[in-house]
Amino acid sequence: MNRRNMVYEGKAKILYEGPEPGTLIQYFKDDATAFNKKKTGTLSGKGVINNHISEHIFKALTDIGIPNHFIERMSMREQLIKAVEIIPVEVIVRNIAAGTLSKRLGIEEGTPLPRPLVEYCFKSDELDDPLIAEDHILTFGWANDWELEDMTHLALRVNDFLSGMFAGIGIKLVDFKLEFGRLYEGEEVITLLADEISPDGCRLWDMETGEKMDKDRFRRDLGGEMEAYAEVARRLGILPSADVKDLSSHRKG
Amino acid sequence: MNRRNMVYEGKAKILYEGPEPGTLIQYFKDDATAFNKKKTGTLSGKGVINNHISEHIFKALTDIGIPNHFIERMSMREQLIKAVEIIPVEVIVRNIAAGTLSKRLGIEEGTPLPRPLVEYCFKSDELDDPLIAEDHILTFGWANDWELEDMTHLALRVNDFLSGMFAGIGIKLVDFKLEFGRLYEGEEVITLLADEISPDGCRLWDMETGEKMDKDRFRRDLGGEMEAYAEVARRLGILPSADVKDLSSHRKG
Repeated sequence: MNRRNMVYEGKAKILYEGPEPGTLIQYFKDDATAFNKKKTGTLSGKGVINNHISEHIFKALTDIGIPNHFIERMSMREQLIKAVEIIPVEVIVRNIAAGTLSKRLGIEEGTPLPRPLVEYCFKSDELDDPLIAEDHILTFGWANDWELEDMTHLALRVNDFLSGMFAGIGIKLVDFKLEFGRLYEGEEVITLLADEISPDGCRLWDMETGEKMDKDRFRRDLGGEMEAYAEVARRLGILPSADVKDLSSHRKG
Repeated sequence: MNRRNMVYEGKAKILYEGPEPGTLIQYFKDDATAFNKKKTGTLSGKGVINNHISEHIFKALTDIGIPNHFIERMSMREQLIKAVEIIPVEVIVRNIAAGTLSKRLGIEEGTPLPRPLVEYCFKSDELDDPLIAEDHILTFGWANDWELEDMTHLALRVNDFLSGMFAGIGIKLVDFKLEFGRLYEGEEVITLLADEISPDGCRLWDMETGEKMDKDRFRRDLGGEMEAYAEVARRLGILPSADVKDLSSHRKG
């Protein structure tokens, strides 16, 4: 394999130059971080599972017409994606109160919200990704009016679809985070769903037992992270859980 | 004077039952608090000055058609207001970065904003008045669609008017906080500007010297709070500053 040129290294992924202009390779690491890197660790096999789960979800979203950056999975830890200019706004959709929402607004974790709530955070490790409102986004030009509308509209569609998909396999989609990017096509600028969708950025609760099947297991020292991630993959019909112990060996050469 | 029945005691004001149904008496204390009561003090005469400044501003806002709760000033520390149901959302309008905005988003204090920024906070001492977005307001029903639209529209009008009024007396309106209430009139619910507008809830910078003429003098231990408040009153043509030392004696009997 040719040596790749790294473009960017994030907390859980690395971006390399892709084989063609306008493409990138998204590599999934086993590194886990929480509370903006105040807590770090390694979850063996996480990168492999998340690469597969994210592939599965992005393909399904393509099928329902959600424009996104995914092109194809290349290997156990890598996927080919369209190079986009990332919009520095995280979009969070919440169906049930949990995490920072519960803490900031004093709403007991587990309280169903009267309707899906869309939150925005400014992507900044330095500032701990602070919550912002639509007016901050527009005032500081982090996105323009129609990009904000695109992001919000797409986020709510993704929420409907994923709520259904997870409900079908006995999992409650509590909340999740999305990132979007700009793709310049001639005169046009298109808003694409980017980044990844995996148990790293979703809260997933088993409908029967209420058990957490997501990164909260790591954040809250509950243990069994990889068994939970693999169970999500297994229910989605990918990566039979029997393989989990072997996943950590799929390292990039 | 008849003994009044207290309805509510806040950090800087007390509300008493008014002389007629649907009215309240708003009494201005000298108590000063900052950082949600983590810092407290007494500023002798503040209540008198704020009562007069707020009267002056609410009357001027009435003149330009901003619906509000003010009826009339009754005494040095008291004003008669319409009883409203307070909407639990603070509306903040910012023209220049300062305070929590600078801190949360890493924008240097004093940076002019590209356009007036409207922020909302959930009124909750217990939660430190957390920043929220429009979608939180609607999701949790703290205000409905048209109330949110009313508040935002009125806040921007107030910003235009006050920016002009303060510019006229050599003061830059950096930011300010508003509160609104609901007035039930038969079938109708009207959104009224409520609370107070004074140097307690505004950032006011002298245009020549940049000197702070607001509660930041107290928050940041700069001293000279009352001289600054009185100077604002003097420039507005009310309460000649010579009277400041006598103001603290105007206590409720």
